[in-house]
Amino acid sequence: MSTTDNSKIKLYELALEDGRSASPFVWRIRYALAHKGIAYETAYVGFTDIPKLFGGKFKTVPILEHGSTVLNESWDIAEYLDRAFPDKPALFNTPAEHSLVKFTDAWFVGEVLRKMFRVYVKDVHDAARPQDRQYFRESREKNMKGQTLETFTAERATHLPAIRAALAPLRQYLRKYPFLGGATPNYADYIALGGFYWAASAGTIPLLERDDSLRGYVSRGFDLYGGIAREPGVKPLFE
Amino acid sequence: MSTTDNSKIKLYELALEDGRSASPFVWRIRYALAHKGIAYETAYVGFTDIPKLFGGKFKTVPILEHGSTVLNESWDIAEYLDRAFPDKPALFNTPAEHSLVKFTDAWFVGEVLRKMFRVYVKDVHDAARPQDRQYFRESREKNMKGQTLETFTAERATHLPAIRAALAPLRQYLRKYPFLGGATPNYADYIALGGFYWAASAGTIPLLERDDSLRGYVSRGFDLYGGIAREPGVKPLFE
Repeated sequence: MSTTDNSKIKLYELALEDGRSASPFVWRIRYALAHKGIAYETAYVGFTDIPKLFGGKFKTVPILEHGSTVLNESWDIAEYLDRAFPDKPALFNTPAEHSLVKFTDAWFVGEVLRKMFRVYVKDVHDAARPQDRQYFRESREKNMKGQTLETFTAERATHLPAIRAALAPLRQYLRKYPFLGGATPNYADYIALGGFYWAASAGTIPLLERDDSLRGYVSRGFDLYGGIAREPGVKPLFE
Repeated sequence: MSTTDNSKIKLYELALEDGRSASPFVWRIRYALAHKGIAYETAYVGFTDIPKLFGGKFKTVPILEHGSTVLNESWDIAEYLDRAFPDKPALFNTPAEHSLVKFTDAWFVGEVLRKMFRVYVKDVHDAARPQDRQYFRESREKNMKGQTLETFTAERATHLPAIRAALAPLRQYLRKYPFLGGATPNYADYIALGGFYWAASAGTIPLLERDDSLRGYVSRGFDLYGGIAREPGVKPLFE
Protein backbone atom coordinates (compact mmCIF):
# COMPACT_ATOMS: atom_id res chain seq x y z
CA MET A 1 0.00 0.00 0.00
CA SER A 2 1.24 3.49 -0.70
CA THR A 3 -1.33 5.50 1.20
CA THR A 4 -0.82 6.40 4.81
CA ASP A 5 -3.23 5.29 7.49
CA ASN A 6 -4.47 8.48 9.13
CA SER A 7 -5.61 6.88 12.38
CA LYS A 8 -4.13 8.52 15.45
CA ILE A 9 -1.01 7.10 17.00
CA LYS A 10 -0.79 6.65 20.74
CA LEU A 11 2.46 5.73 22.48
CA TYR A 12 2.32 4.29 25.99
CA GLU A 13 5.47 5.32 27.81
CA LEU A 14 6.87 4.56 31.22
CA ALA A 15 6.57 7.43 33.67
CA LEU A 16 8.87 8.13 36.59
CA GLU A 17 7.71 10.10 39.60
CA ASP A 18 8.80 13.36 37.94
CA GLY A 19 6.69 12.55 34.89
CA ARG A 20 9.56 11.84 32.47
CA SER A 21 9.82 8.76 30.33
CA ALA A 22 12.79 6.57 31.14
CA SER A 23 12.79 3.30 29.24
CA PRO A 24 15.62 2.87 26.74
CA PHE A 25 13.17 0.97 24.53
CA VAL A 26 10.50 3.67 24.68
CA TRP A 27 13.17 6.16 23.68
CA ARG A 28 13.99 4.16 20.57
CA ILE A 29 10.40 4.68 19.47
CA ARG A 30 10.33 8.35 20.48
CA TYR A 31 13.32 8.84 18.21
CA ALA A 32 11.80 6.67 15.48
CA LEU A 33 8.56 8.67 15.43
CA ALA A 34 10.54 11.93 15.30
CA HIS A 35 12.74 10.52 12.49
CA LYS A 36 9.63 9.79 10.47
CA GLY A 37 7.94 13.04 11.41
CA ILE A 38 4.85 11.28 12.76
CA ALA A 39 2.68 13.12 15.27
CA TYR A 40 1.47 11.07 18.20
CA GLU A 41 -0.26 11.26 21.52
CA THR A 42 1.50 10.11 24.68
CA ALA A 43 0.03 8.09 27.51
CA TYR A 44 2.28 8.00 30.56
CA VAL A 45 1.91 4.89 32.65
CA GLY A 46 3.72 3.53 35.68
CA PHE A 47 5.11 0.01 36.02
CA THR A 48 1.97 -1.19 37.78
CA ASP A 49 -0.35 0.26 35.13
CA ILE A 50 0.95 -1.92 32.30
CA PRO A 51 -0.99 -5.08 33.29
CA LYS A 52 -4.18 -3.01 33.35
CA LEU A 53 -3.85 -2.07 29.66
CA PHE A 54 -5.21 -4.14 26.75
CA GLY A 55 -6.47 -6.90 29.03
CA GLY A 56 -3.04 -7.51 30.50
CA LYS A 57 -1.67 -8.55 27.12
CA PHE A 58 1.68 -6.81 27.56
CA LYS A 59 4.26 -6.82 30.35
CA THR A 60 6.45 -4.00 29.03
CA VAL A 61 6.38 -0.66 27.29
CA PRO A 62 6.55 0.82 24.70
CA ILE A 63 3.08 -0.01 23.53
CA LEU A 64 2.01 1.59 20.27
CA GLU A 65 -1.64 1.88 19.31
CA HIS A 66 -2.55 2.80 15.75
CA GLY A 67 -6.18 2.27 14.77
CA SER A 68 -6.84 -1.39 15.52
CA THR A 69 -3.12 -2.28 15.61
CA VAL A 70 -1.46 -2.64 19.00
CA LEU A 71 2.20 -3.64 19.32
CA ASN A 72 4.67 -3.61 22.19
CA GLU A 73 8.11 -4.85 21.16
CA SER A 74 10.23 -1.88 20.08
CA TRP A 75 11.61 -3.73 17.06
CA ASP A 76 8.11 -4.77 15.99
CA ILE A 77 6.97 -1.18 16.34
CA ALA A 78 9.90 0.24 14.37
CA GLU A 79 9.36 -2.21 11.51
CA TYR A 80 5.62 -1.54 11.59
CA LEU A 81 6.17 2.21 11.30
CA ASP A 82 8.12 1.71 8.06
CA ARG A 83 5.35 -0.50 6.67
CA ALA A 84 2.45 1.71 7.80
CA PHE A 85 4.01 5.00 6.71
CA PRO A 86 5.77 4.25 3.43
CA ASP A 87 5.67 7.92 2.42
CA LYS A 88 7.64 9.04 5.49
CA PRO A 89 11.45 8.81 5.83
CA ALA A 90 12.33 5.15 6.33
CA LEU A 91 14.05 3.80 9.43
CA PHE A 92 15.47 0.94 7.36
CA ASN A 93 16.23 1.75 3.74
CA THR A 94 17.64 -1.65 2.80
CA PRO A 95 17.71 -5.18 4.23
CA ALA A 96 21.46 -4.77 4.89
CA GLU A 97 20.88 -1.62 6.91
CA HIS A 98 18.19 -3.44 8.90
CA SER A 99 20.44 -6.43 9.61
CA LEU A 100 23.47 -4.34 10.59
CA VAL A 101 21.30 -2.30 12.95
CA LYS A 102 20.24 -5.63 14.46
CA PHE A 103 23.89 -6.50 14.96
CA THR A 104 24.58 -3.10 16.52
CA ASP A 105 21.64 -3.75 18.85
CA ALA A 106 23.09 -7.14 19.87
CA TRP A 107 26.40 -5.41 20.60
CA PHE A 108 24.89 -2.48 22.52
CA VAL A 109 22.45 -4.48 24.63
CA GLY A 110 24.87 -7.30 25.40
CA GLU A 111 28.05 -5.34 25.98
CA VAL A 112 26.75 -2.04 27.34
CA LEU A 113 23.07 -1.78 28.31
CA ARG A 114 22.91 -5.02 30.31
CA LYS A 115 25.92 -3.90 32.35
CA MET A 116 24.32 -0.52 32.92
CA PHE A 117 21.40 -2.28 34.61
CA ARG A 118 23.75 -3.36 37.42
CA VAL A 119 24.65 0.26 38.02
CA TYR A 120 21.28 1.97 37.73
CA VAL A 121 18.59 -0.48 38.82
CA LYS A 122 18.23 0.98 42.30
CA ASP A 123 18.23 4.52 40.91
CA VAL A 124 15.31 3.62 38.66
CA HIS A 125 13.50 2.17 41.67
CA ASP A 126 14.08 5.35 43.63
CA ALA A 127 12.91 7.52 40.72
CA ALA A 128 9.77 5.46 40.03
CA ARG A 129 6.34 6.59 41.17
CA PRO A 130 5.91 5.63 44.85
CA GLN A 131 3.04 3.26 44.00
CA ASP A 132 5.31 1.38 41.54
CA ARG A 133 8.32 0.84 43.77
CA GLN A 134 7.26 -2.31 45.56
CA TYR A 135 6.37 -4.04 42.29
CA PHE A 136 9.61 -2.86 40.70
CA ARG A 137 11.66 -4.12 43.63
CA GLU A 138 10.00 -7.53 43.77
CA SER A 139 10.13 -8.16 40.03
CA ARG A 140 13.81 -7.14 39.76
CA GLU A 141 15.00 -8.85 42.93
CA LYS A 142 13.55 -12.11 41.60
CA ASN A 143 16.49 -12.20 39.16
CA MET A 144 19.11 -11.28 41.75
CA LYS A 145 19.47 -14.61 43.53
CA GLY A 146 18.31 -13.41 46.91
CA GLN A 147 20.05 -10.08 46.83
CA THR A 148 18.22 -6.83 47.47
CA LEU A 149 18.50 -3.83 45.17
CA GLU A 150 20.73 -2.33 47.83
CA THR A 151 23.21 -5.22 48.09
CA PHE A 152 23.11 -5.78 44.31
CA THR A 153 24.23 -2.20 43.66
CA ALA A 154 26.48 -1.69 46.71
CA GLU A 155 29.68 -1.92 44.66
CA ARG A 156 28.15 -0.53 41.51
CA ALA A 157 30.91 1.95 40.70
CA THR A 158 33.26 -0.97 40.16
CA HIS A 159 31.28 -1.86 37.02
CA LEU A 160 31.80 1.51 35.36
CA PRO A 161 35.30 0.82 33.94
CA ALA A 162 34.07 -2.26 32.07
CA ILE A 163 31.12 -0.37 30.58
CA ARG A 164 33.36 2.50 29.52
CA ALA A 165 35.83 0.07 27.95
CA ALA A 166 33.03 -1.75 26.12
CA LEU A 167 32.16 1.49 24.33
CA ALA A 168 35.57 1.58 22.59
CA PRO A 169 34.24 0.47 19.17
CA LEU A 170 31.71 3.30 19.18
CA ARG A 171 34.41 5.85 20.05
CA GLN A 172 36.70 4.47 17.37
CA TYR A 173 33.96 4.60 14.74
CA LEU A 174 32.88 8.13 15.69
CA ARG A 175 36.33 9.52 14.98
CA LYS A 176 35.24 9.77 11.35
CA TYR A 177 31.46 9.92 11.35
CA PRO A 178 28.90 11.98 13.26
CA PHE A 179 26.33 9.18 13.56
CA LEU A 180 26.16 5.39 13.28
CA GLY A 181 23.89 6.04 10.30
CA GLY A 182 26.72 8.06 8.71
CA ALA A 183 26.09 11.74 7.98
CA THR A 184 22.59 11.43 9.39
CA PRO A 185 21.28 9.31 12.28
CA ASN A 186 19.52 6.00 11.85
CA TYR A 187 17.91 3.46 14.17
CA ALA A 188 21.32 2.25 15.42
CA ASP A 189 21.83 5.73 16.84
CA TYR A 190 18.42 5.68 18.47
CA ILE A 191 19.34 2.42 20.18
CA ALA A 192 22.54 3.86 21.62
CA LEU A 193 21.07 7.26 22.43
CA GLY A 194 18.07 5.65 24.13
CA GLY A 195 20.48 3.77 26.37
CA PHE A 196 22.46 6.88 27.20
CA TYR A 197 19.28 8.80 27.91
CA TRP A 198 18.16 6.05 30.27
CA ALA A 199 21.43 6.30 32.22
CA ALA A 200 20.94 10.04 32.50
CA SER A 201 17.25 9.89 33.35
CA ALA A 202 17.54 8.45 36.82
CA GLY A 203 21.20 7.66 37.39
CA THR A 204 22.84 9.22 40.43
CA ILE A 205 26.40 8.49 39.32
CA PRO A 206 27.61 9.56 35.87
CA LEU A 207 28.12 6.77 33.36
CA LEU A 208 31.05 8.33 31.50
CA GLU A 209 34.25 10.16 32.29
CA ARG A 210 34.45 13.91 31.94
CA ASP A 211 36.75 13.86 28.91
CA ASP A 212 35.11 10.92 27.13
CA SER A 213 35.09 11.56 23.40
CA LEU A 214 31.49 10.29 23.31
CA ARG A 215 30.41 13.65 24.70
CA GLY A 216 30.09 15.19 21.24
CA TYR A 217 28.03 12.29 19.96
CA VAL A 218 25.65 12.27 22.90
CA SER A 219 25.24 16.02 22.61
CA ARG A 220 24.43 15.79 18.88
CA GLY A 221 22.04 12.94 19.56
CA PHE A 222 20.17 14.62 22.41
CA ASP A 223 19.87 17.77 20.26
CA LEU A 224 18.16 15.93 17.39
CA TYR A 225 14.59 16.81 16.42
CA GLY A 226 14.47 20.07 18.29
CA GLY A 227 16.30 18.81 21.37
CA ILE A 228 14.23 15.65 21.80
CA ALA A 229 16.26 14.47 24.82
CA ARG A 230 17.03 17.86 26.35
CA GLU A 231 14.53 17.47 29.12
CA PRO A 232 14.59 19.30 32.44
CA GLY A 233 15.69 17.04 35.26
CA VAL A 234 18.01 14.89 33.14
CA LYS A 235 21.12 14.15 35.20
CA PRO A 236 24.73 14.49 34.07
CA LEU A 237 25.91 11.60 31.90
CA PHE A 238 29.52 12.74 32.23
CA GLU A 239 31.52 13.18 35.44
CA MET B 1 30.59 6.92 -15.17
CA SER B 2 28.47 3.91 -15.97
CA THR B 3 30.83 1.94 -18.19
CA THR B 4 33.25 -0.51 -16.72
CA ASP B 5 37.00 -0.11 -17.11
CA ASN B 6 38.20 -3.27 -18.78
CA SER B 7 41.84 -3.03 -17.70
CA LYS B 8 43.09 -6.13 -15.96
CA ILE B 9 43.01 -6.31 -12.18
CA LYS B 10 46.02 -7.57 -10.29
CA LEU B 11 45.88 -8.30 -6.56
CA TYR B 12 49.13 -8.51 -4.62
CA GLU B 13 48.65 -10.93 -1.77
CA LEU B 14 50.82 -12.07 1.10
CA ALA B 15 52.25 -15.56 0.64
CA LEU B 16 53.18 -17.95 3.39
CA GLU B 17 55.75 -20.68 2.85
CA ASP B 18 53.03 -23.07 1.68
CA GLY B 19 51.91 -20.55 -0.95
CA ARG B 20 48.61 -19.62 0.67
CA SER B 21 47.48 -16.07 1.30
CA ALA B 22 47.08 -15.22 4.97
CA SER B 23 46.35 -11.57 5.59
CA PRO B 24 42.91 -10.80 7.03
CA PHE B 25 42.93 -7.62 4.95
CA VAL B 26 43.83 -9.40 1.71
CA TRP B 27 40.97 -11.77 2.39
CA ARG B 28 38.52 -8.91 2.64
CA ILE B 29 39.44 -8.02 -0.94
CA ARG B 30 39.40 -11.62 -2.17
CA TYR B 31 35.84 -11.81 -0.88
CA ALA B 32 34.99 -8.39 -2.30
CA LEU B 33 36.19 -9.33 -5.78
CA ALA B 34 34.23 -12.57 -5.62
CA HIS B 35 31.14 -10.70 -4.42
CA LYS B 36 31.36 -8.42 -7.44
CA GLY B 37 32.24 -11.25 -9.80
CA ILE B 38 35.42 -9.55 -11.00
CA ALA B 39 38.15 -11.71 -12.48
CA TYR B 40 41.68 -10.88 -11.38
CA GLU B 41 45.24 -12.05 -11.50
CA THR B 42 47.10 -12.83 -8.29
CA ALA B 43 50.68 -11.92 -7.46
CA TYR B 44 51.93 -13.68 -4.36
CA VAL B 45 54.57 -11.76 -2.46
CA GLY B 46 56.37 -12.32 0.82
CA PHE B 47 56.75 -9.73 3.59
CA THR B 48 60.17 -8.68 2.29
CA ASP B 49 58.93 -8.24 -1.29
CA ILE B 50 56.47 -5.45 -0.47
CA PRO B 51 59.08 -2.64 -0.30
CA LYS B 52 60.35 -3.70 -3.73
CA LEU B 53 56.99 -3.03 -5.37
CA PHE B 54 55.89 0.32 -6.78
CA GLY B 55 59.06 2.08 -5.67
CA GLY B 56 58.56 1.15 -2.05
CA LYS B 57 55.34 3.17 -1.89
CA PHE B 58 53.46 0.64 0.24
CA LYS B 59 54.29 -1.15 3.48
CA THR B 60 51.39 -3.58 3.49
CA VAL B 61 49.19 -5.73 1.30
CA PRO B 62 46.67 -5.97 -0.24
CA ILE B 63 47.80 -3.89 -3.18
CA LEU B 64 45.35 -3.63 -6.05
CA GLU B 65 46.50 -2.58 -9.52
CA HIS B 66 43.89 -1.64 -12.10
CA GLY B 67 45.18 0.12 -15.19
CA SER B 68 47.02 3.14 -13.87
CA THR B 69 45.32 2.97 -10.47
CA VAL B 70 47.24 1.43 -7.56
CA LEU B 71 45.78 1.29 -4.07
CA ASN B 72 46.74 -0.54 -0.91
CA GLU B 73 44.36 0.12 1.97
CA SER B 74 41.63 -2.52 1.98
CA TRP B 75 38.90 0.04 2.63
CA ASP B 76 40.18 2.27 -0.18
CA ILE B 77 40.21 -0.74 -2.48
CA ALA B 78 36.70 -1.85 -1.54
CA GLU B 79 35.28 1.63 -2.10
CA TYR B 80 37.21 1.92 -5.37
CA LEU B 81 35.75 -1.35 -6.64
CA ASP B 82 32.22 -0.01 -6.18
CA ARG B 83 33.14 3.20 -8.07
CA ALA B 84 35.07 1.49 -10.87
CA PHE B 85 32.54 -1.30 -11.46
CA PRO B 86 29.14 0.34 -11.06
CA ASP B 87 27.48 -2.40 -13.11
CA LYS B 88 28.61 -5.17 -10.77
CA PRO B 89 26.90 -6.05 -7.46
CA ALA B 90 27.71 -3.29 -4.97
CA LEU B 91 29.60 -3.87 -1.74
CA PHE B 92 27.87 -0.84 -0.23
CA ASN B 93 24.36 -0.19 -1.45
CA THR B 94 23.64 2.83 0.73
CA PRO B 95 25.60 5.29 2.88
CA ALA B 96 24.03 3.74 5.99
CA GLU B 97 25.21 0.26 5.01
CA HIS B 98 28.70 1.66 4.45
CA SER B 99 28.78 3.41 7.83
CA LEU B 100 27.43 0.44 9.77
CA VAL B 101 30.01 -1.82 8.14
CA LYS B 102 32.61 0.70 9.32
CA PHE B 103 31.24 0.36 12.84
CA THR B 104 31.30 -3.43 12.58
CA ASP B 105 34.93 -3.14 11.46
CA ALA B 106 35.80 -0.99 14.49
CA TRP B 107 34.19 -3.61 16.71
CA PHE B 108 35.82 -6.61 15.05
CA VAL B 109 39.32 -5.18 14.80
CA GLY B 110 39.32 -3.64 18.27
CA GLU B 111 37.60 -6.37 20.24
CA VAL B 112 38.59 -9.51 18.33
CA LEU B 113 41.30 -9.24 15.66
CA ARG B 114 43.77 -7.25 17.73
CA LYS B 115 43.52 -9.80 20.53
CA MET B 116 44.04 -12.62 18.02
CA PHE B 117 47.40 -11.08 17.13
CA ARG B 118 48.66 -11.92 20.62
CA VAL B 119 47.77 -15.54 20.05
CA TYR B 120 48.93 -16.08 16.49
CA VAL B 121 51.86 -13.76 15.80
CA LYS B 122 54.50 -16.44 16.32
CA ASP B 123 52.52 -18.94 14.26
CA VAL B 124 52.49 -16.48 11.36
CA HIS B 125 56.25 -16.06 11.74
CA ASP B 126 56.73 -19.82 11.66
CA ALA B 127 54.49 -20.17 8.60
CA ALA B 128 56.14 -17.34 6.66
CA ARG B 129 58.62 -17.98 3.87
CA PRO B 130 62.06 -18.60 5.45
CA GLN B 131 63.50 -15.49 3.81
CA ASP B 132 60.76 -13.34 5.41
CA ARG B 133 61.07 -14.55 8.99
CA GLN B 134 63.84 -12.32 10.22
CA TYR B 135 62.12 -9.20 8.88
CA PHE B 136 58.80 -10.33 10.35
CA ARG B 137 60.35 -10.99 13.74
CA GLU B 138 62.19 -7.67 13.92
CA SER B 139 59.27 -5.56 12.75
CA ARG B 140 56.82 -7.22 15.16
CA GLU B 141 59.16 -7.37 18.17
CA LYS B 142 59.65 -3.61 17.85
CA ASN B 143 56.13 -3.20 19.25
CA MET B 144 56.58 -5.77 22.02
CA LYS B 145 58.61 -3.70 24.49
CA GLY B 146 61.67 -5.89 24.43
CA GLN B 147 59.85 -9.21 24.37
CA THR B 148 60.57 -11.86 21.77
CA LEU B 149 57.83 -13.56 19.77
CA GLU B 150 58.40 -16.55 22.03
CA THR B 151 57.96 -14.73 25.36
CA PHE B 152 55.13 -12.60 23.95
CA THR B 153 53.13 -15.72 23.08
CA ALA B 154 54.23 -18.00 25.92
CA GLU B 155 50.90 -17.70 27.78
CA ARG B 156 48.86 -17.18 24.64
CA ALA B 157 46.12 -19.68 25.47
CA THR B 158 45.12 -17.48 28.41
CA HIS B 159 43.89 -14.88 25.88
CA LEU B 160 41.45 -17.23 24.18
CA PRO B 161 38.60 -16.89 26.72
CA ALA B 162 38.50 -13.10 26.27
CA ILE B 163 38.43 -13.40 22.48
CA ARG B 164 35.66 -15.98 22.63
CA ALA B 165 33.67 -13.81 25.01
CA ALA B 166 34.15 -10.77 22.77
CA LEU B 167 32.38 -12.60 19.95
CA ALA B 168 29.12 -12.77 21.95
CA PRO B 169 27.35 -10.02 19.94
CA LEU B 170 28.04 -11.88 16.69
CA ARG B 171 26.65 -15.13 18.17
CA GLN B 172 23.59 -13.34 19.48
CA TYR B 173 22.92 -11.66 16.13
CA LEU B 174 23.41 -14.88 14.15
CA ARG B 175 20.63 -16.63 16.06
CA LYS B 176 18.23 -15.04 13.57
CA TYR B 177 20.25 -14.24 10.45
CA PRO B 178 22.67 -16.22 8.30
CA PHE B 179 25.00 -13.29 7.55
CA LEU B 180 25.78 -9.83 8.91
CA GLY B 181 24.44 -8.59 5.57
CA GLY B 182 21.14 -10.36 6.33
CA ALA B 183 19.98 -13.10 3.97
CA THR B 184 23.10 -12.58 1.86
CA PRO B 185 26.65 -11.64 2.91
CA ASN B 186 28.05 -8.14 2.71
CA TYR B 187 31.41 -6.52 3.44
CA ALA B 188 30.88 -6.83 7.23
CA ASP B 189 30.90 -10.59 6.75
CA TYR B 190 34.07 -10.42 4.69
CA ILE B 191 35.75 -8.52 7.53
CA ALA B 192 34.82 -11.18 10.09
CA LEU B 193 35.44 -14.13 7.80
CA GLY B 194 38.83 -12.72 6.74
CA GLY B 195 39.79 -12.62 10.41
CA PHE B 196 38.62 -16.17 11.02
CA TYR B 197 40.44 -17.38 7.93
CA TRP B 198 43.62 -15.70 9.17
CA ALA B 199 43.35 -17.55 12.51
CA ALA B 200 42.94 -20.81 10.63
CA SER B 201 45.65 -20.14 8.06
CA ALA B 202 48.63 -20.43 10.34
CA GLY B 203 47.29 -20.89 13.86
CA THR B 204 48.47 -23.93 15.77
CA ILE B 205 45.85 -23.68 18.50
CA PRO B 206 42.15 -23.44 17.59
CA LEU B 207 40.54 -20.07 18.17
CA LEU B 208 37.09 -21.35 19.09
CA GLU B 209 35.54 -24.06 21.23
CA ARG B 210 34.24 -27.23 19.63
CA ASP B 211 30.58 -26.44 20.26
CA ASP B 212 30.75 -22.73 19.46
CA SER B 213 27.58 -21.69 17.65
CA LEU B 214 29.77 -19.67 15.25
CA ARG B 215 30.65 -22.93 13.51
CA GLY B 216 27.67 -22.73 11.17
CA TYR B 217 28.46 -19.14 10.23
CA VAL B 218 32.13 -19.80 9.54
CA SER B 219 31.20 -22.84 7.49
CA ARG B 220 28.69 -20.88 5.40
CA GLY B 221 31.21 -18.10 4.96
CA PHE B 222 34.10 -20.31 3.90
CA ASP B 223 31.77 -22.06 1.43
CA LEU B 224 30.83 -18.82 -0.35
CA TYR B 225 31.78 -18.31 -4.00
CA GLY B 226 32.54 -21.91 -4.71
CA GLY B 227 34.34 -22.58 -1.44
CA ILE B 228 36.56 -19.50 -1.57
CA ALA B 229 38.19 -20.25 1.80
CA ARG B 230 38.16 -24.05 1.61
CA GLU B 231 41.85 -24.29 0.91
CA PRO B 232 44.01 -27.32 1.55
CA GLY B 233 46.25 -26.81 4.56
CA VAL B 234 43.84 -24.60 6.47
CA LYS B 235 43.99 -25.59 10.12
CA PRO B 236 41.04 -26.27 12.43
CA LEU B 237 39.38 -23.12 13.71
CA PHE B 238 37.41 -25.14 16.29
CA GLU B 239 38.80 -27.36 19.03
